[in-house]
Amino acid sequence: MTLKLYFATGACSFVPHSLLEAAGAPFEPVLVKLHKGEQNSPEYRAINPRGQVPVLVDGDTVITQILAIVGYLNDRFPQANFLPKEPLARAKVMETLAWMNNTVHPTFTHVFMPFKFTDKPEAQAEIKAYNAQLYRPMLADIEAMAQKAAKEGRPFLGGQDFGPLDAYALTLLRWGGFAGIDPAGFPALWSHVQKVAQLPPVARAIERERLQLNVYQPATGRP
Amino acid sequence: MTLKLYFATGACSFVPHSLLEAAGAPFEPVLVKLHKGEQNSPEYRAINPRGQVPVLVDGDTVITQILAIVGYLNDRFPQANFLPKEPLARAKVMETLAWMNNTVHPTFTHVFMPFKFTDKPEAQAEIKAYNAQLYRPMLADIEAMAQKAAKEGRPFLGGQDFGPLDAYALTLLRWGGFAGIDPAGFPALWSHVQKVAQLPPVARAIERERLQLNVYQPATGRP
Repeated sequence: MTLKLYFATGACSFVPHSLLEAAGAPFEPVLVKLHKGEQNSPEYRAINPRGQVPVLVDGDTVITQILAIVGYLNDRFPQANFLPKEPLARAKVMETLAWMNNTVHPTFTHVFMPFKFTDKPEAQAEIKAYNAQLYRPMLADIEAMAQKAAKEGRPFLGGQDFGPLDAYALTLLRWGGFAGIDPAGFPALWSHVQKVAQLPPVARAIERERLQLNVYQPATGRP
Repeated sequence: MTLKLYFATGACSFVPHSLLEAAGAPFEPVLVKLHKGEQNSPEYRAINPRGQVPVLVDGDTVITQILAIVGYLNDRFPQANFLPKEPLARAKVMETLAWMNNTVHPTFTHVFMPFKFTDKPEAQAEIKAYNAQLYRPMLADIEAMAQKAAKEGRPFLGGQDFGPLDAYALTLLRWGGFAGIDPAGFPALWSHVQKVAQLPPVARAIERERLQLNVYQPATGRP
């Protein structure tokens, strides 16, 4: 049975999208156009009542949530080494993955979609500004991880193989551009992300999503 | 090497706390008094720079994040069946666990600690009120899970054995009381939580944390 992945351009679904490419397994990618509200269509809500991406469908089973999908892909494609085999080492990778997912990612959501947390426009503006400030030191934490990996001679954030931390780091640094954060301010991370983006499976996912890796636009100083 | 768990009373650290009791393994519980700011002490920050609970220490390795700790306890105590062995079934439990952790839990954080998301008092009040409204339907989702488990004859939310979903559900429903939500409004879930609380290992964790299961206080109507 072919796996099916529902993804949206530039969303966190990039994590399973690039892992599926890296697994070398056939899968059916299905684009969900968030800007057209397709995630709220009755058809999509029947698949995922929460109206989010990513969704992985395997036969009759629908799996949502990055951490669940990553765990499942690791079980299904053990040769890809998406997660370390040794329990303590795997726990450390899962720790960072969970932090990216429950802390860094939602901090960006406060910047990008503050209306999810209050319906008052003034409070939305406060939330947006405050969380943009919180987001930068979180990227600095990931920069430190990239520096440590480089220092220790590990080619990827989770070890010797491309995995979910690399794909999520790419996504989170890219999002920073939308929050006015220049990726070049995190040199080890930006270098790592550019290297990861050139891996053939990752490049295929980027191509399919038509992603621009650096979306940062410096202020021009013009009115 | 004895495991060490840093926990705080009534926090989400209750999840690994009750799992460690259920595993029947010796462990050293260490109470972190959040109201005294112990999580910000240099000693604690040296263990977990993010100043959060739970922290599980195994030898020289420090593991943070519920999802990482749960996965590790499942690896270390396979006989406890904290997670299903079959990959798809395990992915479905991890899906719900991830949702509790990255959606339900942070929604309550907006109610309980709105200052984490803005430093403006007015915006904090908006965030608090708005997220209290969001929290109730999330508990209703967990109520539906408890109803489904009862209907299908499963004694626990994740299957035949006590596991992380039960412990997290107990914690999240209990927190609802602080947000003015009566647990009795979710009858299947409240019944399940009361049953779970009476399991000897869970009762030991509740006793150690001196938890009151129902913290809801109905409005008296008095000035």
